[in-house]
Amino acid sequence: MVSQQVKPYVIGLDLGGTNSVFGIVDSRGEIKATTAIKTQSYTSVKDYVEASVEALHTIIDQVGGIEKIKSMGIGAPDGNYYKGTVEYAPNLVWAHDCIVPLADMFKEKLGIPVGITNDANAAAIGEMVYGVARGMKNFIMLTLGTGVGSGIVINGSLVYGSDGFAGELGHVTMRRENGRTCGCGRKGCLEAYCSATGVARTAREMLESSSTPSVLRDLKPADITSLEVSRAAEKGDALALKVYDFTGEMLGEACADFATFCSPEAFIFFGGLTKAGDLIMNPIKKSYDKHVMPIFKGKAKFLISELDGSSAAVLGASAIGWDL
Amino acid sequence: MVSQQVKPYVIGLDLGGTNSVFGIVDSRGEIKATTAIKTQSYTSVKDYVEASVEALHTIIDQVGGIEKIKSMGIGAPDGNYYKGTVEYAPNLVWAHDCIVPLADMFKEKLGIPVGITNDANAAAIGEMVYGVARGMKNFIMLTLGTGVGSGIVINGSLVYGSDGFAGELGHVTMRRENGRTCGCGRKGCLEAYCSATGVARTAREMLESSSTPSVLRDLKPADITSLEVSRAAEKGDALALKVYDFTGEMLGEACADFATFCSPEAFIFFGGLTKAGDLIMNPIKKSYDKHVMPIFKGKAKFLISELDGSSAAVLGASAIGWDL
Repeated sequence: MVSQQVKPYVIGLDLGGTNSVFGIVDSRGEIKATTAIKTQSYTSVKDYVEASVEALHTIIDQVGGIEKIKSMGIGAPDGNYYKGTVEYAPNLVWAHDCIVPLADMFKEKLGIPVGITNDANAAAIGEMVYGVARGMKNFIMLTLGTGVGSGIVINGSLVYGSDGFAGELGHVTMRRENGRTCGCGRKGCLEAYCSATGVARTAREMLESSSTPSVLRDLKPADITSLEVSRAAEKGDALALKVYDFTGEMLGEACADFATFCSPEAFIFFGGLTKAGDLIMNPIKKSYDKHVMPIFKGKAKFLISELDGSSAAVLGASAIGWDL
Repeated sequence: MVSQQVKPYVIGLDLGGTNSVFGIVDSRGEIKATTAIKTQSYTSVKDYVEASVEALHTIIDQVGGIEKIKSMGIGAPDGNYYKGTVEYAPNLVWAHDCIVPLADMFKEKLGIPVGITNDANAAAIGEMVYGVARGMKNFIMLTLGTGVGSGIVINGSLVYGSDGFAGELGHVTMRRENGRTCGCGRKGCLEAYCSATGVARTAREMLESSSTPSVLRDLKPADITSLEVSRAAEKGDALALKVYDFTGEMLGEACADFATFCSPEAFIFFGGLTKAGDLIMNPIKKSYDKHVMPIFKGKAKFLISELDGSSAAVLGASAIGWDL
């Protein structure tokens, strides 16, 4: 507690392909200062780190100087917690074909401990430190965004596995025959169905294979996004609701399998798809109850993240810092 | 270390539906004394515990008295580690319709700490303490016997989950359509295909649906067991080898999904089916390589338990004791 009083803040960096958002966060999850740079503007990681540190200096000064900062946490695609690296991240020009020791580079410039993990793991830690998972020792976080990510907490610790890359539940195989091709190059992954692009694809497939009336028919197939599906569903559009039923059914089946692994206290959902609320959560719960082993029935909670979407990623990243 | 020198032994109890085997074990996994009673002879748990303790006294005396015993570990079907109970175990007359506080009952009689978990979890701990998983922090144990059980170790600790029942990987769904009915009442579970009964069933199905010549055709379908399949495969029987290919293919697919969860250092196999050696292990490895996410490819080892089959269950149970 002493060190926390002396150094009451951690830095969180939400490193995305387009933007890098920094926040200085206190132990209650309040963001005291924030700044951002364009990730895409830098072609070398050296330039990227220099620009980041320059931007950081301004907000560090705002909270009373680097002496007030305990550490820094980074949530990044393909971030490896054990090695402090970003490895072969397709969306980062300076890391798409190599291993970048990003944590060490920031540590050297800032003189504080720096930790890194992937964005979904960061979200899970954020939820445990500041969100609905406070006090939980065993839960699974599923992030439903462009892809489907996951962070698994067992006995109060995030699961990194033998190599630092554990928790890729978006890539369990849900369709072993005639599965959709997934971004990972394999077929039938959960992500190929339950990500934003998966949901849009389901809508396009259902429009083609059925004659159910739908406002989505007014759009060109290529213009149908998960957002359009969500808008239609909110208005009670029958086909859009079917899309949610299908997506929730599969998520519930997947969660039933996940329960056999670690029997979590809760499944926590985060990301655009959760904005649909009960329209997606009810099919998930119904499907879970139908498919889960009797021994686990009725035990797990199904929750939606309470962290504010726009700051959740920064909070999640910052949360890594408290344990460094 | 001091307490281990003063109390160099733990008791292991392998509690099966038919027999209960007790062993007194040292820290290197050497069984110093052993005894057994018939589980089925006792209709009340009180009588069962009394008979157990009476049998135990003899071997406890052999190793120098209860002062030499640190603790007792029990591996039992439907054993709950958190609560020290056996819950609704179909094969135990005194626990098939109720919750039995077995750990406390032994603790009261013996005056030493007593821990309990299910048999597959005990096997995983045994492997970590005395077997091929020594020094490993992340691995998955799969027991291929009458059923398919599992014990999952993450960060050096067994995964019990929120309720003490985690690690039921025999019941992930491998066939979502037209799946075989499983003993758990659901359909398409891994166990329905890759257990001993599953293997025999696969053989019967293949005999019926193909005209491949096979020595198994000399048997009545009802007489085909996994042991007969194994004997035939060893002799190069084409159909029996196909049965192993099918079984290994599915186990490899399942392990590929498990890798997304905890990226284990190794998958360790135990039980009758592993006696087939490469005949089963090669199809598993080939299928795993084909199905696993690129990021995990080539990382996990595939090992067969080195613990002696007849004493492995007692050793596994005893291993729980060292941490109590």
